[in-house]
Amino acid sequence: MKGLFITFEGADGSGKSTQLRFLAEYLEERGVSVVRTREPGGCLVAEKIRELLLSKDSEMDGVTEALLYAAARAAHVRQVIRPALDAGRVVLCDRFIHSSLAYQGYGRGLGTDLVWQINKPAIDGCMPDVTVFINVPPERAFERMNENKVHDRLESEDLSFHQRVFDGFTQLSKGEGIISIDARGTKFETREIILQKLMPYFVSAGIL
Amino acid sequence: MKGLFITFEGADGSGKSTQLRFLAEYLEERGVSVVRTREPGGCLVAEKIRELLLSKDSEMDGVTEALLYAAARAAHVRQVIRPALDAGRVVLCDRFIHSSLAYQGYGRGLGTDLVWQINKPAIDGCMPDVTVFINVPPERAFERMNENKVHDRLESEDLSFHQRVFDGFTQLSKGEGIISIDARGTKFETREIILQKLMPYFVSAGIL
Repeated sequence: MKGLFITFEGADGSGKSTQLRFLAEYLEERGVSVVRTREPGGCLVAEKIRELLLSKDSEMDGVTEALLYAAARAAHVRQVIRPALDAGRVVLCDRFIHSSLAYQGYGRGLGTDLVWQINKPAIDGCMPDVTVFINVPPERAFERMNENKVHDRLESEDLSFHQRVFDGFTQLSKGEGIISIDARGTKFETREIILQKLMPYFVSAGIL
Repeated sequence: MKGLFITFEGADGSGKSTQLRFLAEYLEERGVSVVRTREPGGCLVAEKIRELLLSKDSEMDGVTEALLYAAARAAHVRQVIRPALDAGRVVLCDRFIHSSLAYQGYGRGLGTDLVWQINKPAIDGCMPDVTVFINVPPERAFERMNENKVHDRLESEDLSFHQRVFDGFTQLSKGEGIISIDARGTKFETREIILQKLMPYFVSAGIL
């Protein structure tokens, strides 16, 4: 039995981490074995890379940034995601390749071809079965984000950067394997939309 | 005026760092503006990546390792090497792309095609004008290395790993732009051989 790999994407402040938790709880209540994880991070070396990436002391260009995210992803895929999928588990991951495409490809202006090229060896064919894009316009996400604590290096970028990232996500969500979720309602309404959209995947994988 | 970019390569314990210092001193005594640097490292974010790479706590596969070296290289090229070359300086760098090809390509078995692919965006065309390979057989380098202090994560690999790395360097030194230096003599004899081999590069670049 092969597991199911679902990634959650969206702007900082879009509520994707909350929605990931809702889905994990829903599945766990039904006896499904779920691995909740996040990027950058999810294993020791990747969490160290995360620290480096999010620290405000870390001055770096877009290519260095893209390579660091890819390095963290390579370790995460090999140490956590692939072993969990091989064991038939459901992996819910907060951010994955689409964040690299949106943040470095669009936000930093590297373009998606270069970001794909950098990430191909990291992912090594381990692509999500489905990606959930929590579609919240950047002004609103920005507002929610600003209710939170101290901002990391990427959160501290200005609204025009976050606008480019959002436009990137919007472009990407027109592609294969990604579902755009209208998240203008309450978080509970959004949870219901996500469940409804994902149900066919759970059923066809024999999970529910 | 365009500077000159010279890299020093070889096994741990081959004496390449000593030879780099000798050459820097030789040039500086003649009024040449030299930048001495090293990989991984050479700028703040790359030195942080170096710590991560060399720490024995950092469990990682070959692809993650190759991506981290490439990330450090991308920052080093953009923050240090290219600006120095643009200012007409001579850049002497302890390890560069050939170390990635030898250590990850041959030592870790990733192959040189994959390592090139990962490094291409990092290097962005900023290749050495000439590379000096300090050719010391691994048994001897291993011996010298073992006279030193505590070993880092890569130095701690066994002799068979270091043998594959050395075989890799030997293969690579048959290519373009790399000079293999017979370093079986004293360090002062080796210094003379290197000076003699590099002199045409200094002369044609108008440096000496």
